[in-house]
Amino acid sequence: MELPVPPDVVRAAYAELVVTDLAEARRFYVDLLGFAVSAESDTALYLRGYDELIHHNLILRAGPEAAAARLAYRVRTAADLDRAEAFFAALGSRTARVPAGVTPGVGEAVRAEDPLGFTVEFFFEADWAERLQQRYDLRRGAEPARLDHFNIVVSDVRAAYEYYTSLGFGLSETIEDDQTLYAAWMFRKQTVHDMAFTGGDGPRLHHLGFFTHESHQVLRICDILGSRHAEAHIERGPGRHGVSNAFYVYLRDPDGHRVELYTSDYYTGDPGHPVLRWSVRDPRRRDFWGHPVVPSWYSEASTVLDLDGRPCPLLARQQTAEQAAEVGADGYTRLSAEPLDRQLAR
Amino acid sequence: MELPVPPDVVRAAYAELVVTDLAEARRFYVDLLGFAVSAESDTALYLRGYDELIHHNLILRAGPEAAAARLAYRVRTAADLDRAEAFFAALGSRTARVPAGVTPGVGEAVRAEDPLGFTVEFFFEADWAERLQQRYDLRRGAEPARLDHFNIVVSDVRAAYEYYTSLGFGLSETIEDDQTLYAAWMFRKQTVHDMAFTGGDGPRLHHLGFFTHESHQVLRICDILGSRHAEAHIERGPGRHGVSNAFYVYLRDPDGHRVELYTSDYYTGDPGHPVLRWSVRDPRRRDFWGHPVVPSWYSEASTVLDLDGRPCPLLARQQTAEQAAEVGADGYTRLSAEPLDRQLAR
Amino acid sequence: MELPVPPDVVRAAYAELVVTDLAEARRFYVDLLGFAVSAESDTALYLRGYDELIHHNLILRAGPEAAAARLAYRVRTAADLDRAEAFFAALGSRTARVPAGVTPGVGEAVRAEDPLGFTVEFFFEADWAERLQQRYDLRRGAEPARLDHFNIVVSDVRAAYEYYTSLGFGLSETIEDDQTLYAAWMFRKQTVHDMAFTGGDGPRLHHLGFFTHESHQVLRICDILGSRHAEAHIERGPGRHGVSNAFYVYLRDPDGHRVELYTSDYYTGDPGHPVLRWSVRDPRRRDFWGHPVVPSWYSEASTVLDLDGRPCPLLARQQTAEQAAEVGADGYTRLSAEPLDRQLAR
Amino acid sequence: MELPVPPDVVRAAYAELVVTDLAEARRFYVDLLGFAVSAESDTALYLRGYDELIHHNLILRAGPEAAAARLAYRVRTAADLDRAEAFFAALGSRTARVPAGVTPGVGEAVRAEDPLGFTVEFFFEADWAERLQQRYDLRRGAEPARLDHFNIVVSDVRAAYEYYTSLGFGLSETIEDDQTLYAAWMFRKQTVHDMAFTGGDGPRLHHLGFFTHESHQVLRICDILGSRHAEAHIERGPGRHGVSNAFYVYLRDPDGHRVELYTSDYYTGDPGHPVLRWSVRDPRRRDFWGHPVVPSWYSEASTVLDLDGRPCPLLARQQTAEQAAEVGADGYTRLSAEPLDRQLAR
Repeated sequence: MELPVPPDVVRAAYAELVVTDLAEARRFYVDLLGFAVSAESDTALYLRGYDELIHHNLILRAGPEAAAARLAYRVRTAADLDRAEAFFAALGSRTARVPAGVTPGVGEAVRAEDPLGFTVEFFFEADWAERLQQRYDLRRGAEPARLDHFNIVVSDVRAAYEYYTSLGFGLSETIEDDQTLYAAWMFRKQTVHDMAFTGGDGPRLHHLGFFTHESHQVLRICDILGSRHAEAHIERGPGRHGVSNAFYVYLRDPDGHRVELYTSDYYTGDPGHPVLRWSVRDPRRRDFWGHPVVPSWYSEASTVLDLDGRPCPLLARQQTAEQAAEVGADGYTRLSAEPLDRQLAR
Repeated sequence: MELPVPPDVVRAAYAELVVTDLAEARRFYVDLLGFAVSAESDTALYLRGYDELIHHNLILRAGPEAAAARLAYRVRTAADLDRAEAFFAALGSRTARVPAGVTPGVGEAVRAEDPLGFTVEFFFEADWAERLQQRYDLRRGAEPARLDHFNIVVSDVRAAYEYYTSLGFGLSETIEDDQTLYAAWMFRKQTVHDMAFTGGDGPRLHHLGFFTHESHQVLRICDILGSRHAEAHIERGPGRHGVSNAFYVYLRDPDGHRVELYTSDYYTGDPGHPVLRWSVRDPRRRDFWGHPVVPSWYSEASTVLDLDGRPCPLLARQQTAEQAAEVGADGYTRLSAEPLDRQLAR
Repeated sequence: MELPVPPDVVRAAYAELVVTDLAEARRFYVDLLGFAVSAESDTALYLRGYDELIHHNLILRAGPEAAAARLAYRVRTAADLDRAEAFFAALGSRTARVPAGVTPGVGEAVRAEDPLGFTVEFFFEADWAERLQQRYDLRRGAEPARLDHFNIVVSDVRAAYEYYTSLGFGLSETIEDDQTLYAAWMFRKQTVHDMAFTGGDGPRLHHLGFFTHESHQVLRICDILGSRHAEAHIERGPGRHGVSNAFYVYLRDPDGHRVELYTSDYYTGDPGHPVLRWSVRDPRRRDFWGHPVVPSWYSEASTVLDLDGRPCPLLARQQTAEQAAEVGADGYTRLSAEPLDRQLAR
Repeated sequence: MELPVPPDVVRAAYAELVVTDLAEARRFYVDLLGFAVSAESDTALYLRGYDELIHHNLILRAGPEAAAARLAYRVRTAADLDRAEAFFAALGSRTARVPAGVTPGVGEAVRAEDPLGFTVEFFFEADWAERLQQRYDLRRGAEPARLDHFNIVVSDVRAAYEYYTSLGFGLSETIEDDQTLYAAWMFRKQTVHDMAFTGGDGPRLHHLGFFTHESHQVLRICDILGSRHAEAHIERGPGRHGVSNAFYVYLRDPDGHRVELYTSDYYTGDPGHPVLRWSVRDPRRRDFWGHPVVPSWYSEASTVLDLDGRPCPLLARQQTAEQAAEVGADGYTRLSAEPLDRQLAR
């Protein structure tokens, strides 16, 4: 099938999460992590990073069940809304026009239930936010600068890769072996990714990645969480990713939504940017320092909602496909079983 | 005049500098600053940063007089070479086609003497370089990651701004007052700039800016230079720029060419990215911490060469226009003259 | 003269500064710099760093004229108070016993007008403060950890060195030439110094040095001051000291008192620790990166008070002795006068 | 029993490790970790950190079986050698005088088989080493600054604590519950420790701790090891210790000897420094971010040698005493078993 011209996506712009306790979520995202508040009501919070110039990167909306309501992309022109609508219609996806004013700070938008089962939004108009990038006096917590990327759990990584390719995304890195594409990182803006896919029962939201400028900011949020005896929010890391080369930590919010703080990836804006392909057997792909990934990171993720706000049913997949393919994914057991000198000789 | 469609510039890609002692230049750029060597001959060195994926960001060519030979941009497609040729022909600029193979690592190119008096180059094809971004074991010095931008001295900043606008560059920041545009920062890739203009006797190259990932890398190169009693290479900084918000240091190479190490600016890729305009009277515009700019930074710069390799004559301008406009540009004198409590009360 | 056994000084513990506007001083030290408040009244603030385990490192007391009231050392035992009294009596210094309870958080103390003209205090008993070193959630500003050292202006550096030697201090570094001792750094705790001497019209307090853990904390306070357009508080730096090897910045408080934020010096606790002697002609001694010292740093300092709270008269000295001895102390002028290549060839 | 006056220990000064492949050990300690070489022969390497002013912090000696030969303390005066001899004689320990010249760079020494089963050495005279603290141009790897501490495995932590108390060490922190002292940190120099005890089958050497100045140096060595695909050398961390508040990583050398890189603890030099007591049930005590300790860290350690160079037999202890006492020591299992919201609500 020949698809229509896709909308010209600029970047991952914001996500809306449903949280079960808005006050608790505010304590986590604003008081601890340090997000700037662009707007708030009794039922929703609109947050952005310190470098962000549009209205928000994250909407937290109160609801009865924790979920990820939608993932929103900014597009290059107003005409891209029509392109988005036509593109998803051609895919057989259900779409909806959302008038300006429905979402504070954002103009007219097109939403669609994409072929992977996620509700995605495309918008062009956005209110500019006050520049805070040089308000060092206001910075707190992890000093998040801007949304960097989405990471989603999909039951078929190759299908996700092909769909996002049709949407005009470039490929920066993969985890694979001869048979299988285990994970892929894809971009529109000139970084490693705006979107990445993790294999598992999907559709679910794996995490939202927020950019910080330096690694000491990633360490700092962990120290703050320890100070408040809130260290259970730290799920994985800090560490260096093999993929993307970024320094990271994964946190879980009070509802279990996963947030990554992420710094120091690389420029991907050149034409023909070459793909970096990691073997699923390289223990450095997920953590450049060789530490095993904690099991919850592979198994747990956020429910996503359809256009009507109903949870999307999951398509099963052997969740541990990448884990099963790993040499020594069980990590610590292996370290005790095998004599150290043999490990070190590898 | 209606100009033809300009070439689609991707980014500032490399510069060629003429140095009078190639061995001395190698010690500075490779042994001290830590650039990776992509190729070298008896008469030239081809260097790149650790993140760079094309062949080089900097050519050092041995010659009798120090100069900046050309500034090269990568373009999006091979067809952009023709566009570049037509664009500069329409401007009345002298141009030249350079066949593939003339410059190692770079394909066919179009060169032009641009309206500001600089020799610029446009190329599409480039050899991919070995990825070094995860070769932390090889890193040295300032660990330069990639070329970030050019900064040029021009006698008419507004004319430079208008010419680069016609070439498709966006504007991120300015220094100005009601009458005068003192400096401007313009971009193609999604950072604060690929090119900036400093007012003065032009055309001259003010500096080449190289990106590093974290501020401790900027501090480190200063410490290394102190260790070698080579601290005279440090001209200005380290400091925080008001413009761009980046953390910086300016070094002078053995021939006096100026190199900036630069980290932590911000994303500019959104449509309609808003311009940040600094008053020439804000002492934080050049240094966010209010330190005066050293006089040599305003007055000294590198001679540039025409297409035939001859030095371009200078168009005079009151070099100190921005300095003269400053409140307290003389810095230290003022600090002694005015009682501290009155200063602090400002 | 055979002096009695001196008191066993543990370390520089706190200073009392008189400030003319306590609310303004609170904004500077607490809101901006981030000191923890141990106690406060209408007329005084008791502040400490995050690592400090005694009651305070700094007393800010409201008064009509800015001054440094006293410098206080903690001693090893209660018996050292008697030793202090006898020691200063033998020196012919006026002394006073201060009962416990006069200074909040500190027990009985002995004060003396020392031979250099400073009011110094010795105390043993101190209230323990709540540990904040792992309260990362409370940290702000420069995150000062503890008082590191005093630096005083004295008209005779050699006399000051000899007196502090008699008080049991060790010598870590000097600035000197064949004839003159320009500056000296002396210690009791196992760091580069608890006390240092700068030559000039004395007695005056040059600065209080506070320790922070990492260099990014020194950069951060500068960024915060820039954010608040309070950059005039930044007098000198950030930079790397040649002497001590520490990374530093000098700030001026709203009354002009000078505060240094200081990190990364070295261990000096071994017996026979060797002295590091810097030539006054090495431009790296004061700034390892070769930047000239701003003139105010040499000329301005805080008035000190005697035991009765009256300003001490100054003993004149050619204030610019070290400056005059410098090669190129005038810094920027020299840089323009001498061709760069000749400088770089030095 | 009334013990004689103990030697006045200044600090942990150096350790001698037996390694099975000296070339391999050199690659690890010198080429990767970045230690400075003070001296070397066919059978031994003498290494120091960049800040160190005595001859060495680490001797690597070639031998048939990996082991820790001895732990050496510097004492305050030559007379402390006699005190050491008398002290250990009174304890019934076997001792030996070692003439100057036996160990390069170190003068006469007294060695003893201490009551815990370790060979310890006391020396006063030492050759001064060239200052490298400002040779930033030479720094590599983790840029170790100096030896910070020893950590030993002992079968009876309380007995170890009491013996080191008799040797004049102060106590900074503990891990304990109502019945048991699980671990203790003890100091002579003004840091958290020169020596710490981990409960388990002893005597064994748990690790040598080396100080670095900033946390980015700890991250860097991990990145370097990843770059060389030598990430199996990284056993635990990087992380923040609850105990000591230091930022750390544990590496295993090619023979399995454990090395810690350690930064940012705190000053302990005041009289009556208060002990910080951690509950064994606080998951932050070993890692402030709550990450479980890898099992090998509790179970594996280096054999120690007696005065004759023979391996010391182990006294068994339930190695996992601290682990067994932990709530959730099994870490990852628990994280999957318990719903996240309940964990986060703790």
